[in-house]
Amino acid sequence: MKEIQHISSGANYIAIDLGEFDQLMDHSYIHPKLKQEVKGKVFVGELLKTTGVEVSFQLLPPETAVPFLHKHKAHEEVYIILKGSGQFQVDGQCFDVKEGSVIRIDPEGERTLRNNSNNPMVFMVIQSMAGSLDQHLIFDGYRVKGEVKWDKELL
Amino acid sequence: MKEIQHISSGANYIAIDLGEFDQLMDHSYIHPKLKQEVKGKVFVGELLKTTGVEVSFQLLPPETAVPFLHKHKAHEEVYIILKGSGQFQVDGQCFDVKEGSVIRIDPEGERTLRNNSNNPMVFMVIQSMAGSLDQHLIFDGYRVKGEVKWDKELL
Repeated sequence: MKEIQHISSGANYIAIDLGEFDQLMDHSYIHPKLKQEVKGKVFVGELLKTTGVEVSFQLLPPETAVPFLHKHKAHEEVYIILKGSGQFQVDGQCFDVKEGSVIRIDPEGERTLRNNSNNPMVFMVIQSMAGSLDQHLIFDGYRVKGEVKWDKELL
Repeated sequence: MKEIQHISSGANYIAIDLGEFDQLMDHSYIHPKLKQEVKGKVFVGELLKTTGVEVSFQLLPPETAVPFLHKHKAHEEVYIILKGSGQFQVDGQCFDVKEGSVIRIDPEGERTLRNNSNNPMVFMVIQSMAGSLDQHLIFDGYRVKGEVKWDKELL
């Protein structure tokens, strides 16, 4: 099992590196209650000390499925397919997904997904507290005055 | 400018498709206040009706930089580098990032990034309300009893 690499950190940030998404099988997730090992899955919230989201990444090998449906108590989930293709299912409705597909699911949606292709499928999941966003607030961000300085020249 | 495709939706979910990440330049984001067009950038929160996060995707062509630093009022950000490589900067500290790098930044961190390579760099950003997560709660999810049924057979 490969360690997740620390890149850099400071008062206001932490940066880590998972490696290329094709290599996610180098990582494993041990379910803390069930003690099951899930190869190719990794959660990053604890390492990054996130306070608004939990984020996980997972590689499903060809012709494999997440073998159960699940729901949430309080969390909205957003799934993003990063590589490959497969099928998604919510409340019994099935649909094809592929690189660039993004799916938002309410806590009560019964969800699962599978890789029914011959190539690896990589996806990520964002968990957040449903209803926690005040507004759609790209206006939350604001520019800092002054020139951007870099410590290395552009190539 | 290419339309973002709707895939499927139901009472508890919405699924959309952005297309392959290499093709993000087909999309544009028009800043609602500044009326500036940013090619290769797209926000998905409104389309997905998210309530806990805003999510955006952006392609930076070779040797281009986000030309300003920015901070946030209330949002934590998580950046994920999806393809290629470049450099990130927070509070004056610069570091290299590449596919698989994940960076969490507090609202007050002064941040920017650039693509100093010869290949496109694709990244995504998750905005959430800092401090909104009660716990690191993979335990928020729970399995639904019964067998998973799919409407198509595995290949």
